[in-house]
Amino acid sequence: MKIGIVGGTGDIGEGMALRLSPLFDVMVGSREQEKALATCTMNRELLRKRGKECSLTGVGNQAAIDGADIIILAVPFKHLVGTLEGLHGFEDKIVISPVNPMEKRDHFTFVPPPEGSAALLVKRLLPQSARICSGFNTIAANKWKALDEDLEYSVPVCGDDEAAKREVMGIVNRISRLRAFDAGPLAASCMVEALTPLLLNIARYNKMKDVGIQFR
Amino acid sequence: MKIGIVGGTGDIGEGMALRLSPLFDVMVGSREQEKALATCTMNRELLRKRGKECSLTGVGNQAAIDGADIIILAVPFKHLVGTLEGLHGFEDKIVISPVNPMEKRDHFTFVPPPEGSAALLVKRLLPQSARICSGFNTIAANKWKALDEDLEYSVPVCGDDEAAKREVMGIVNRISRLRAFDAGPLAASCMVEALTPLLLNIARYNKMKDVGIQFR
Repeated sequence: MKIGIVGGTGDIGEGMALRLSPLFDVMVGSREQEKALATCTMNRELLRKRGKECSLTGVGNQAAIDGADIIILAVPFKHLVGTLEGLHGFEDKIVISPVNPMEKRDHFTFVPPPEGSAALLVKRLLPQSARICSGFNTIAANKWKALDEDLEYSVPVCGDDEAAKREVMGIVNRISRLRAFDAGPLAASCMVEALTPLLLNIARYNKMKDVGIQFR
Repeated sequence: MKIGIVGGTGDIGEGMALRLSPLFDVMVGSREQEKALATCTMNRELLRKRGKECSLTGVGNQAAIDGADIIILAVPFKHLVGTLEGLHGFEDKIVISPVNPMEKRDHFTFVPPPEGSAALLVKRLLPQSARICSGFNTIAANKWKALDEDLEYSVPVCGDDEAAKREVMGIVNRISRLRAFDAGPLAASCMVEALTPLLLNIARYNKMKDVGIQFR
């Protein structure tokens, strides 16, 4: 199974590639292929030092979509529409949105688009056959990259295509000690996306770092 | 310190009284004082069987406000406005809103009032000197009542009055193994209230019961 990361050289994308590439074939996409190649070289080195094999290919964002079965949109909300408008080929593919629409005022606030959530916005912009799920919304970039730490978090996954959702949950459950939870249809993704500004507020007001969640 | 529970004979209020009355003086309020007295008798009996002393007084909702320093609004969202319209005397008191505005469609959805959250609606309805916090939003009624179980959950608390928020967090931290977290100003309470429909969806779609959260 090939996983393509659109925005794979960003903070989150880079960490995702580190955790995913020992388990799956990962295509790291970027607007500039050179940056993607550099990220792959760096990640390969980091993993080799830990004695881990990995499968990493640095490509442009479009090639990451064309070459993969599952695509992760590791893009900040403010660049989501612009990024998707320049790309195509999402037909029949599983597309994972970890995107959280939020703003920092004096505190962090969930500010969804008119569709209700970033995942629903993705659904509107992509072809109808794209199998969209939200997932990985609440894992901080630093935690993705902290390879010596277990990721002991719960990961809510939303989606309207049950088979796609099961596949995404299966991927989640293979990464470190993440545990996937079915959080319902894509229409319920707003409540998942609202978790991230909440967790950023918890971190800020309690002097913590990279706060995550567990359901129990 | 006296805690008054408006709606103290409802599902949540009854359980709160069970957990709070061995620690604090609790005034269980109800629209009908007889119901409040019956709840107190039942709770006293349940606690006595476990060898626990408690301080419980059954009163009307107005008397629970008048007699207490801290008031918990244990009222479902749909009855919140109606209940508050019939009550007064909130001046200078700490008022805790555990209320979650939500609807069950095919899944549970956060449906906030125009103010942005139930806590902000409470703020608009009560006198300016009332010191409003949101808190206890995500603890399920069954868990409040399950006296043989520890409550190992995180409890986000929002509020604009820092001293009131610290006091509420202190109360939270005395109950079982609950741990309070400052979740920012009252304007951030929408993200806390949205947790409950999320947790209900997690329970529903993963065949779980009374799901709670931990920040970590």
